[in-house]
Amino acid sequence: MNTNSNIILGANQYGKAEVRLVKITRDTERHSIEDLNVTSQLRGDFAAAHLEGDNAHVVATDTQKNTIYSLARDGVGSPEAFLQRLAAHFTGSFDWVTGGRWAAESYAWDRIQANGTGHNHSFVRNGQEVRTAVVVKDGDATHVIGGLKDLTVLKSTESGFVGYPKDKYTTLAETTDRVMSTDVAARWRYNPAATATLDFNKTYDDVKALLLEGFTEGYSHALQQTLFDMGKKVMDAHEEIDEIKFSMPNKHHFVVDLSPFGQDNPGEVLFAADRPYGLIEATVVRENGSDAGNAWDGMAGFC
Amino acid sequence: MNTNSNIILGANQYGKAEVRLVKITRDTERHSIEDLNVTSQLRGDFAAAHLEGDNAHVVATDTQKNTIYSLARDGVGSPEAFLQRLAAHFTGSFDWVTGGRWAAESYAWDRIQANGTGHNHSFVRNGQEVRTAVVVKDGDATHVIGGLKDLTVLKSTESGFVGYPKDKYTTLAETTDRVMSTDVAARWRYNPAATATLDFNKTYDDVKALLLEGFTEGYSHALQQTLFDMGKKVMDAHEEIDEIKFSMPNKHHFVVDLSPFGQDNPGEVLFAADRPYGLIEATVVRENGSDAGNAWDGMAGFC
Amino acid sequence: MNTNSNIILGANQYGKAEVRLVKITRDTERHSIEDLNVTSQLRGDFAAAHLEGDNAHVVATDTQKNTIYSLARDGVGSPEAFLQRLAAHFTGSFDWVTGGRWAAESYAWDRIQANGTGHNHSFVRNGQEVRTAVVVKDGDATHVIGGLKDLTVLKSTESGFVGYPKDKYTTLAETTDRVMSTDVAARWRYNPAATATLDFNKTYDDVKALLLEGFTEGYSHALQQTLFDMGKKVMDAHEEIDEIKFSMPNKHHFVVDLSPFGQDNPGEVLFAADRPYGLIEATVVRENGSDAGNAWDGMAGFC
Amino acid sequence: MNTNSNIILGANQYGKAEVRLVKITRDTERHSIEDLNVTSQLRGDFAAAHLEGDNAHVVATDTQKNTIYSLARDGVGSPEAFLQRLAAHFTGSFDWVTGGRWAAESYAWDRIQANGTGHNHSFVRNGQEVRTAVVVKDGDATHVIGGLKDLTVLKSTESGFVGYPKDKYTTLAETTDRVMSTDVAARWRYNPAATATLDFNKTYDDVKALLLEGFTEGYSHALQQTLFDMGKKVMDAHEEIDEIKFSMPNKHHFVVDLSPFGQDNPGEVLFAADRPYGLIEATVVRENGSDAGNAWDGMAGFC
Repeated sequence: MNTNSNIILGANQYGKAEVRLVKITRDTERHSIEDLNVTSQLRGDFAAAHLEGDNAHVVATDTQKNTIYSLARDGVGSPEAFLQRLAAHFTGSFDWVTGGRWAAESYAWDRIQANGTGHNHSFVRNGQEVRTAVVVKDGDATHVIGGLKDLTVLKSTESGFVGYPKDKYTTLAETTDRVMSTDVAARWRYNPAATATLDFNKTYDDVKALLLEGFTEGYSHALQQTLFDMGKKVMDAHEEIDEIKFSMPNKHHFVVDLSPFGQDNPGEVLFAADRPYGLIEATVVRENGSDAGNAWDGMAGFC
Repeated sequence: MNTNSNIILGANQYGKAEVRLVKITRDTERHSIEDLNVTSQLRGDFAAAHLEGDNAHVVATDTQKNTIYSLARDGVGSPEAFLQRLAAHFTGSFDWVTGGRWAAESYAWDRIQANGTGHNHSFVRNGQEVRTAVVVKDGDATHVIGGLKDLTVLKSTESGFVGYPKDKYTTLAETTDRVMSTDVAARWRYNPAATATLDFNKTYDDVKALLLEGFTEGYSHALQQTLFDMGKKVMDAHEEIDEIKFSMPNKHHFVVDLSPFGQDNPGEVLFAADRPYGLIEATVVRENGSDAGNAWDGMAGFC
Repeated sequence: MNTNSNIILGANQYGKAEVRLVKITRDTERHSIEDLNVTSQLRGDFAAAHLEGDNAHVVATDTQKNTIYSLARDGVGSPEAFLQRLAAHFTGSFDWVTGGRWAAESYAWDRIQANGTGHNHSFVRNGQEVRTAVVVKDGDATHVIGGLKDLTVLKSTESGFVGYPKDKYTTLAETTDRVMSTDVAARWRYNPAATATLDFNKTYDDVKALLLEGFTEGYSHALQQTLFDMGKKVMDAHEEIDEIKFSMPNKHHFVVDLSPFGQDNPGEVLFAADRPYGLIEATVVRENGSDAGNAWDGMAGFC
Repeated sequence: MNTNSNIILGANQYGKAEVRLVKITRDTERHSIEDLNVTSQLRGDFAAAHLEGDNAHVVATDTQKNTIYSLARDGVGSPEAFLQRLAAHFTGSFDWVTGGRWAAESYAWDRIQANGTGHNHSFVRNGQEVRTAVVVKDGDATHVIGGLKDLTVLKSTESGFVGYPKDKYTTLAETTDRVMSTDVAARWRYNPAATATLDFNKTYDDVKALLLEGFTEGYSHALQQTLFDMGKKVMDAHEEIDEIKFSMPNKHHFVVDLSPFGQDNPGEVLFAADRPYGLIEATVVRENGSDAGNAWDGMAGFC
């Protein structure tokens, strides 16, 4: 049907997005909770659906949703491990499914403190950040990418910005003491050799702690410098990580001019601006690390 | 003004909304941060602006913004105390400003843990909930309303729903064991006699803790019951609070039917639905408490 | 259970929120679509649920959802008429349901233009504004409130702001030519005597057109003046409307200072700011109009 | 720099994001408005900033913002043309800036109808969709990508889904008559040879009309088929477009089961679900078209 035309089907994938999965483990009176938002997308031979409306290869997105819930019956464990199980299932079940992209957000819950102790079955959403995970399978290669987003941090001193080029459009004044704030979004790619046995939850907790600690350290001459140092700190400690990408806004906090009102303002009263904002994106990589292949294709907001 | 017409000006207020104010206290090396979103709205004699375009009484919203920043130079302290200062300033400065409504959201920050201790000048947004505060001044009466929203909680058992009326539109099955989850939004009104000297921050922390603890307690026969018990628990402990209003969604978590896949599902795998959701709103009040007057007018989403 | 305590249940309501209802009318090949987001909340005697966990009076929110869908089988007609049917159903079916609040957003769709004509069964969301409707029933009184929100308008001249009071916090410069922009949110209350037979859809279209036309007219000395004139224009033309409330942000468009770059800027290049913004709220009322009762209680963002 | 470590800087870019630019053209009494949200990101040699905190190459993001406003003084024309001017400016002004990515959203406004005619200087936001544009410059290659998003469409019949594979996880029933609805997000890449002189605004209007018309045509056996046909229709008519990518949710509208209430429901009463949703992404390409290079890197949500 598409013969006689030079217009053809290119890259494609499809599936079910944002399957909200809450898994309660209740083997004992002390319950635990896992809370995910899972997306499954298949890649392979789906040309007939696009070109002829023939669905013989189209594993229904409803079926993908059902599969997510069914596989969760045996536990989630970690987002990364769960997505790998999904990848193995779909590529192992249908000849024409040669790969895909599986992604999850997950949301942390804390036990509610009641009578001085963490409650057995009552929880409160943590809200500090959103954890992210992606598994990309492409033929024999499988990429596992951990991550987080919306981790909002601020340092109230030990940051400046000087020495930048001045042209006819430059009006910004140099400063050696400013507030620096950002929403950390980071994605780190694991070396495929490590992903079979890694404790992803433990690794996640440690990476998050290192990112936060890295943010606090030293005097920041530029958000770029802080970003690189944060990434290097993670990768120095985690040899199983070959690459980490950041996308971090520079959330401007402007010192309000109070002089019309007869007041000084030594960096105490600030206006937190919405838009525009700086946007710093960079990758920290391990030389001679594993090949990224197409792992990053279609990753929103990362260069 | 507006003669020759039976169409007249009714209730009105105006001001500057969502003034993003970050206050850094940096007297010592150990900084602290207060992060607010402040709205100021004035009430009084503004008829000429509406009817004749005469701005002689219109304290510019830009001026209100400037005033917020200027007053913050001397510290915020608590949202409730800061809003009371704004109320006193505006009603004390302009004869025709007889009252108004001042509101704030505030966002908590934690110190980043670095090298095992809380850092002096680096912070991470907490994100668990948003604190709210409102001051309504109307002539001699001043109402102070504390609150919070977006405090997401879940109990994984000890909740059921039975005994409701069945009519021709009823298809819901009774259950004695379900997940119960909500986003707590609460607003509590202080007895005016208490607001001059109250430690609003300490009270806030305690009310939040009581709400969380109250949510964990007992078996819930209905979200209405849990709501009332949470409110009563707060008011039993805080005689300075005369009224507390709740607006709480019943965030449905449906047990996924896994039987088509040959699996049981004893409340372990759940679908967290977005819309529709139950919505439970109620007020817990102290008999013979202070008069609310118009304190609640225009309060979004509370009955 | 609440005996021996001075803490009691106050105002309350509950129901199902945000029931997404799409109604396709397909009697002929030329289909039509109605797209609503409906909320049903009941008021009455629900004390036992709050105080004792006794649900004998609690018409399940799931039942309310089912009722919405079932009543829609016979058509929607207009949001206002549909909500009145819901109100009559619930208060007529359960002795202890003495009133309630029913609300809807509705979303307009246009026919897609194909081959020069509006298609029979293909539609595109209009997106210009969201229509709102509320019915409040309280004993014998029933209030019907039409409305709209998110109607974003801008006039690029014929607006200024001068003659406002100057105090020590005033830094704003007067201007006789500025951009004025707002998101119109308006709610109008119908005279109860008119609501039995009114063509709400036709009235809505006309009110929206009058609001838009009113915004264009004359020189605006203040957004307050424009607001009042818009309301008066509607009420002059619609005697069945007794009251209209507005909540309108003053969306600041700042003229960018291009002089550092050797350029003038006669109001051509503007920065559209997010926060803070002015916020103007006012009511235009018909003297001797019907009594509003509690119609406006809990209406978000209207004074 | 970065010696003694195998951890190095990889791909990076930075700039100012979401610069809200409103341009009023007021040469005559009949004003016109252009409303954009512009992001500028530079690529090149920025290693020293990351590795040493040396900002000698860091053209301040504030400077980038100023440049956007200054260049807009001479008019915008079309988002694509304006972004090309920005690209030429930055790569032409700084030796070490070898490329970058410039992006814009733009928002359409209609003239308000007043007294039967379009008003000279009063506008209402259209809201039907958001127009998008990206220019990627990488050495000698420049890619221009037009697009749109949030164009919500629905067809109420002439859509079905049958013939898909059934496995143990399949519970979906086949249907030959369903509602099909999606939010069209499309990005189309122009042949570089065409971008110097193309009328981007006229092309945009035509592409949008073709997408809408394409959506209406024929019986849809799968959203994949409709997607491909929409893309082919655009590319058949526009030889200057070498590639078009789509990301389209399948927004499920479930027929509500009214049989418990004794009612039939021949596709008239539907529940519009939020999550999960199907997600269909595919590319339609011209064989032997121009090379995409890195044009699509980091494009959110497109495979």
